Amino acid sequence: MTPFNLKQHISEYRQDPLSGRWVIIAEERANRPNQFDAVAETQEESWHRNCPFCPGHEKETPEEIDAIRPEDSRENDSRWLARVVPNRFPAITRDCPWNNGLLPHFGETFFFHKTAIPGYGAHEVLIESPRHLFSVTEFDDVEILNMFRLYQKRLQSLRSENHWGHVLIFKNVGAAAGASLSHTHSQLMAMPFVPPPILNELRHATEFRENKHRCYWCDMIKHELSEKVRVVAESEHFLLICPFACRFPMEISIFPKEHVSHFESLSENRVDELAFFVRKSVQILEKAVYWTREPLSYNMILKSAPFQTSSFDPEIYHFHLTILPSLAKAAGFEWGTGLHINPISPETAATKLREFV
Amino acid sequence: MTPFNLKQHISEYRQDPLSGRWVIIAEERANRPNQFDAVAETQEESWHRNCPFCPGHEKETPEEIDAIRPEDSRENDSRWLARVVPNRFPAITRDCPWNNGLLPHFGETFFFHKTAIPGYGAHEVLIESPRHLFSVTEFDDVEILNMFRLYQKRLQSLRSENHWGHVLIFKNVGAAAGASLSHTHSQLMAMPFVPPPILNELRHATEFRENKHRCYWCDMIKHELSEKVRVVAESEHFLLICPFACRFPMEISIFPKEHVSHFESLSENRVDELAFFVRKSVQILEKAVYWTREPLSYNMILKSAPFQTSSFDPEIYHFHLTILPSLAKAAGFEWGTGLHINPISPETAATKLREFV
Repeated sequence: MTPFNLKQHISEYRQDPLSGRWVIIAEERANRPNQFDAVAETQEESWHRNCPFCPGHEKETPEEIDAIRPEDSRENDSRWLARVVPNRFPAITRDCPWNNGLLPHFGETFFFHKTAIPGYGAHEVLIESPRHLFSVTEFDDVEILNMFRLYQKRLQSLRSENHWGHVLIFKNVGAAAGASLSHTHSQLMAMPFVPPPILNELRHATEFRENKHRCYWCDMIKHELSEKVRVVAESEHFLLICPFACRFPMEISIFPKEHVSHFESLSENRVDELAFFVRKSVQILEKAVYWTREPLSYNMILKSAPFQTSSFDPEIYHFHLTILPSLAKAAGFEWGTGLHINPISPETAATKLREFV
Repeated sequence: MTPFNLKQHISEYRQDPLSGRWVIIAEERANRPNQFDAVAETQEESWHRNCPFCPGHEKETPEEIDAIRPEDSRENDSRWLARVVPNRFPAITRDCPWNNGLLPHFGETFFFHKTAIPGYGAHEVLIESPRHLFSVTEFDDVEILNMFRLYQKRLQSLRSENHWGHVLIFKNVGAAAGASLSHTHSQLMAMPFVPPPILNELRHATEFRENKHRCYWCDMIKHELSEKVRVVAESEHFLLICPFACRFPMEISIFPKEHVSHFESLSENRVDELAFFVRKSVQILEKAVYWTREPLSYNMILKSAPFQTSSFDPEIYHFHLTILPSLAKAAGFEWGTGLHINPISPETAATKLREFV
């Protein structure tokens, strides 16, 4: 099926030469199960029988990479508090040609760039709680702290491997947000390069710093705090806003007020403060979109600085967390132009959200 | 609500300075009805009562811009065959500040670009048939021909206005594809500028021509015809393929084999051939995704060359039509990195689709 002789289960990064856009062709993903298909199976008892992420089902996932466990428990036993495993249906894998940092380029002879490289990467699942929960707003204090501590631990560990360009941690909650399993979990994807849209942000932030000798995001935060119209809530060190040019209705972002480029270098106190602030932010969001009939689906994305790029200083990045509620679908116009139509301005959204702080 | 004193119903284009991404903030859109919300109301009789696009309901839409009608019928009466009206809940409007081609830039003082401009544009609805149909595969010969003739007429008319940068025509079919009304219709959005992702395609096509002295797409078509693996079907002058770096499972594109930049300059014979070939292509697609339980939702996008840009020669563009079946959702990874994960390679998709030609 693939234009070159890789093993069937190895995916590919492919670039469209015209748009410059990369995609991941990952046929292994087509095999993943979908818990949301079985609506009748949502009773709590059935989770314990069928959910691969519930305790007692550790053999249904690959062996754990990391975990938070009681001292007297053992790797892969069922007494864990939080657990990291390789994705069983990975989009990218470590099991791929890779020569000391030189990624082999493939591609058909026609294309003027070499337009395909093997799908080298790490794709992990972070199960933040043994309880079959849906949203972070159901997490108790230990669970929400474990979630962000595990994020940090994994980023630190992957960074020390010294050959990843970028790691994205994200969390899809609910079928409308693209999740296939309802048991709460996050995902992590480590890539050997920095995705072009993130490089583009670094490029613009670098231009901004060259002109103004300041961090773009630090300035933006100061601006938002003085304008107030898009600010929803604050904790001592974090700020919740509706971004000026947000793509989705009720989209929110959380920024550290002080400059921190890499989430993994945040101090323990600040991680804990952020964890509680994120849970509170999603609570505000869930209350504010009370018109939806079902539990709110959303994507949560941790936008932390890339580990390394040859072109830019990653330290100029200012990490943040973005939450995209699944209230609108991208359609023909969005896919055709790249422009999103957002029917709720961030000023209106912030006004609504502030009612529920 | 808006940072500047425009009338509430006027939308804004806003740019995120970091990503360079534009969005349209259009609060008027929040008021549009959703036919798919009322599942019980899908009986044919109820359409005649409630559907604003069914004959007899012409007063529920703004007055028509164009139509295909019998000679003895009159504007806005119910005896039309196809009809173009302004979108009642427009994302962009002509009712906006606009000074002979100079778009006023607004934006808050902080942002280092001026980052907002009024939502000037045209947003039209093209109702291709008086019958309450869902997909183009239900269209009879007259209906499918009217659809593409109307596309061409509108593009020719808007082009003669001489101040639009780009027009996108697209069709959202089904709720999963973002449609809010089930009665078949297309939409058209005319913008005073060329959206950045399309400029980017023009930039790469220009580079390609400078290097190779040929059209990128003409070369690509020759390549695909010789490789065969991603070709699904052909008519005399058109080619149906699964694109090499497609973002979505079972994504298909239709290209004219000869170089034509602007759909509106296609000869009448070719328009008719394309119309029938598109209907056939969607038939193949609908048969091939037989595993979906409901009628297939999809986005159809006509990617024709921009009317004018100061930077590039639009004639180098090679128009095409892309159809995106709603089989996968963009999720956290896609929104966070811009990379799409596609679980069906275009080679596998083409193999499957060829079974149904």
